[in-house]
Amino acid sequence: MSELHSRRVGRLRTMMRKLGWDAVVISGTDPFSSEYPADRWHQVEWMSGFTGEAGDLVITLDHAGLWTDSRYFIQSKKQLEGSGIVLHKTRQPDSVSIPEWLAANLESGSAVAFDGLTMSLGAVEELEDALEAAFGADGYRLVSRPDLLDALWEDRPLTPSTSIEYITEKECGESLEDKIEWLRDRIEEKQCSAMVLCSLDEIAWLLNVRGNDIEYNPYVISYLLVTLDSVRWYVDKGEHDPVTENTFAYLRDAGVEILPYGDFFTDMYEVEDRLLVDPASASYELSEVLKKVDKTYDASPIPLMKAVKNNVEIASQKRCYINDGLAMEKFLYWLETRVKSGEPVNEWQASVKLSSLRAEIPGYRGDSFENISAYGAGAALPHYITPRENAPLIEPRGLYLVDSGGHYTTGTTDITRTVPMGELTDLEKEDYTLVLRGMIDLSMAVFPRGTAGCQLDVLARNPLWQARRNFGHGTGHGIGFWLGVHEGPEDIRQNFNRQPLLPGMITSNEPGLYREGLHGVRHENAILVREAARNEFGDFLCFDTLTRCHIDTEPLVTEMMTDDEIDWLNDYNGLVFDTLALRLDPETRAWLREKTLPVCR
Amino acid sequence: MSELHSRRVGRLRTMMRKLGWDAVVISGTDPFSSEYPADRWHQVEWMSGFTGEAGDLVITLDHAGLWTDSRYFIQSKKQLEGSGIVLHKTRQPDSVSIPEWLAANLESGSAVAFDGLTMSLGAVEELEDALEAAFGADGYRLVSRPDLLDALWEDRPLTPSTSIEYITEKECGESLEDKIEWLRDRIEEKQCSAMVLCSLDEIAWLLNVRGNDIEYNPYVISYLLVTLDSVRWYVDKGEHDPVTENTFAYLRDAGVEILPYGDFFTDMYEVEDRLLVDPASASYELSEVLKKVDKTYDASPIPLMKAVKNNVEIASQKRCYINDGLAMEKFLYWLETRVKSGEPVNEWQASVKLSSLRAEIPGYRGDSFENISAYGAGAALPHYITPRENAPLIEPRGLYLVDSGGHYTTGTTDITRTVPMGELTDLEKEDYTLVLRGMIDLSMAVFPRGTAGCQLDVLARNPLWQARRNFGHGTGHGIGFWLGVHEGPEDIRQNFNRQPLLPGMITSNEPGLYREGLHGVRHENAILVREAARNEFGDFLCFDTLTRCHIDTEPLVTEMMTDDEIDWLNDYNGLVFDTLALRLDPETRAWLREKTLPVCR
Repeated sequence: MSELHSRRVGRLRTMMRKLGWDAVVISGTDPFSSEYPADRWHQVEWMSGFTGEAGDLVITLDHAGLWTDSRYFIQSKKQLEGSGIVLHKTRQPDSVSIPEWLAANLESGSAVAFDGLTMSLGAVEELEDALEAAFGADGYRLVSRPDLLDALWEDRPLTPSTSIEYITEKECGESLEDKIEWLRDRIEEKQCSAMVLCSLDEIAWLLNVRGNDIEYNPYVISYLLVTLDSVRWYVDKGEHDPVTENTFAYLRDAGVEILPYGDFFTDMYEVEDRLLVDPASASYELSEVLKKVDKTYDASPIPLMKAVKNNVEIASQKRCYINDGLAMEKFLYWLETRVKSGEPVNEWQASVKLSSLRAEIPGYRGDSFENISAYGAGAALPHYITPRENAPLIEPRGLYLVDSGGHYTTGTTDITRTVPMGELTDLEKEDYTLVLRGMIDLSMAVFPRGTAGCQLDVLARNPLWQARRNFGHGTGHGIGFWLGVHEGPEDIRQNFNRQPLLPGMITSNEPGLYREGLHGVRHENAILVREAARNEFGDFLCFDTLTRCHIDTEPLVTEMMTDDEIDWLNDYNGLVFDTLALRLDPETRAWLREKTLPVCR
Repeated sequence: MSELHSRRVGRLRTMMRKLGWDAVVISGTDPFSSEYPADRWHQVEWMSGFTGEAGDLVITLDHAGLWTDSRYFIQSKKQLEGSGIVLHKTRQPDSVSIPEWLAANLESGSAVAFDGLTMSLGAVEELEDALEAAFGADGYRLVSRPDLLDALWEDRPLTPSTSIEYITEKECGESLEDKIEWLRDRIEEKQCSAMVLCSLDEIAWLLNVRGNDIEYNPYVISYLLVTLDSVRWYVDKGEHDPVTENTFAYLRDAGVEILPYGDFFTDMYEVEDRLLVDPASASYELSEVLKKVDKTYDASPIPLMKAVKNNVEIASQKRCYINDGLAMEKFLYWLETRVKSGEPVNEWQASVKLSSLRAEIPGYRGDSFENISAYGAGAALPHYITPRENAPLIEPRGLYLVDSGGHYTTGTTDITRTVPMGELTDLEKEDYTLVLRGMIDLSMAVFPRGTAGCQLDVLARNPLWQARRNFGHGTGHGIGFWLGVHEGPEDIRQNFNRQPLLPGMITSNEPGLYREGLHGVRHENAILVREAARNEFGDFLCFDTLTRCHIDTEPLVTEMMTDDEIDWLNDYNGLVFDTLALRLDPETRAWLREKTLPVCR
């Protein structure tokens, strides 16, 4: 592997010498600032072998470096071995950013090249600031070369193009015409007459379309221009795909023009409207194209609107979580029975089984992210990747953690269960109990309208903190409606995100605890914000749990729990049984009845 | 009253006509941006009759308005009646700020006057921005006239000048020489060679001096200039006050030059250093004087340093809270005995009694704020002012709330107790219990280093929120060491203050609940942040409660409490008894023993 990447770096340097470039920045994102880019934009992996979700490369004539954060320090060292590419740590107290490093290591008069399609305007401005501070306004040169790796990357994947489905108003509660009218009002409020959309989840939401262009993300790679009297969708037309053609016909009826994806940039040169552009999703290349266009950079109104689910989406998601829960219960029964009977099953086999059970659900459109199927010490890595080959066996002792979810035409799910495979240590039981207490305490929260997730996060952590334990990830992220499994603008974590939690928002509730080399625990439900009460003290909100899958009570140290927590748990498990029982076969039903019997102190 | 104020407004208008001013802004602050200005700077009250802690006036030739927030809507309406001055509400969704109002109501070419000593640079910049946006850069005139009311306000109080004491290193843990050396390092870190200090609490802390120039605030009205080789204190020299003279001699020995207060501004014209100026405390007038001086506007490093108490301050504060607790217990015993025996006692008499008991404590230097002595419905106002005349009687039923504190040479205290005077309603008992649960839950908090108060605040509110109740003030504010009873930079409230809680910080812990016309409950202890544990999950902090005064268990609905909360309460009351018993007379001791008996569910 490493030799391959060292050769690729060498070929890039040859190109750099020919073109007079002193450094190339290779960013790990795509033209849409996506969380998960399609294969075409796995340029960092192609060049370096590094597969982490966050990483950028800098190649100079005598140095090659990968910038990534602590989640990937161990992985990147392994993957970069022998490539000659050096790890630069980010988000550390003494971190040197890419712009700072370039300013300190280049000489005056240097040229820095990058693919402006895969760099945000903000990232390029940071580069400019650092280089200008070091060398003066005329002491450096920035070269944006779209798709600059195409010349070296012979079998580079094309822009993907999968079937495009549409969702009717009945299915998602709001027609695309209404959404567009709503957006036009927002555009006019900002004194603009058009908006360009680059964010793939925003386009999918607005047009009520879903594709499969990116693994685990039901998006369509495209750009959208909404003016006060037109909607222009720049999208690959596919190859005689009847599903897509049907969708296009539907969209055309609704007034959407379907235009070739490749025409987007040329058309944007000629826009005569006053354009609203969200700097969070626009690429540097787009900002260059728009240089002479009259425009306003401002945040898109869509993420908040999209996060607040309407009543149809909520009702649909509720049904969706019931179906998803059935698959989960079938899976957990299968797993427990197999492991207890001594039949060997490894993490990967378990993962495949779970996906196959989800795939039986009507409207299944794929998993919402890669299953984390982790036994024992593997579960101590919050971002564990289950190996396809030689996956660890799940043994009849200790804890097994499974974090998974599905996309359905009725919604998107995300659930984590940690289950006992046999005998447990006291520490496993304690950790299991404390994490569950945190999840329950957050589930029971009541809070005044205006409260942000960061102001509630401590509820999920307090039981752990009391025991001087903690976890290093967020407690909750927004979840889309058959859209991204991670979406904003709200979240529940230790940050200072001011976005209040609003009725209709759906987030995860997933505290955890990880002990290196021993075990990991995470309990995750999806929770919906709803109104709780209005009185002289204000307007109160609370959460409804959407997930329907039992929580194993066997590992619990109930003496560590409060009465309220035990009541919540018994109510929840009872509700799960009542909801699912009639749709399970008798054996699984009997097993689930056992699993959901009330516990007491 | 109102006629008097309407006459004063009239005289100001005569002056405005003579001088060609179209509007005068009268700000409710002093030249030091103090929370509580001295009488000399009660200009808003003098002009309008309004006595609230936050309010600004705008007088034009045909309008007079007071801008204040919701705490004072009712009070201000009463106090402004007949004065012709109109209430303008601030911090409301549709609030129009003073700059916005002036921009909308003046004409092009208007002159706006103010006392630049009592306006911050930031406030004047906001004025400039609004007027420039409305009228263009040349379409308005700003006139800063220091002490502009002097001409009208014949008996305006002089700048106060009280005895100045000093504190030795042994008493406060750090010599002024060491503090100044520390500050010089900070000044140099900011590439400056001097710092001007206007904030009175910062000056008192840095020089280890205490005065009494402002009611309830042990400050000395003065300015300070610290250069890399000099310390120049601009302060009124008093009139042959031996205490002050002794302090000055001590300071001179430590290298502090004592200069006339009145020389400050003239000297500042000639500063040749590169000056560090904190924009949060500098007046507009000072910024004008410094116009040609080389300077950096940046936050002062003192508030954070001052908030983190050293070991000597902590030990001293602990003793101080024991002495303060003795006074509180004597007071509560006196009150209960009197009320139960049928002897009439009103809120004001109770307040006087409490202050007199505090005054018996060695090192007492006054109350740290005006006692809130509130019975029944009066306690439903969080900022209740106990009337001197015709104060309500404390009757042998319902709840009495007392929020009070003292300044001592050993520290500053702040405590609230709510106590039953006889029979209680169920609602009083419930509210009492829920608020106490909040106080206890926050007291028991354990949290990783780096956690800010706003991330813990929910712990104090959660029991109330669960019952769909809430309170509208912060949960905790920093408390000084024989300094301000409200200090930053940390706090515990529903905001987004990123300042982490650090070991050595002392804050209040004071949830409450208020029912208009019925009753109010607040329980307040002072809590000290300290280290709790360090392990693989991080570095954990927790709180130690400093306050030593029992919490009445009679009103409790113990079934509403968790075991942990009841354990905490029993431990706390036991500790209070053990700490104080031997220093109480036998009767009070026996009473306290009864009061601190453990409770159970």
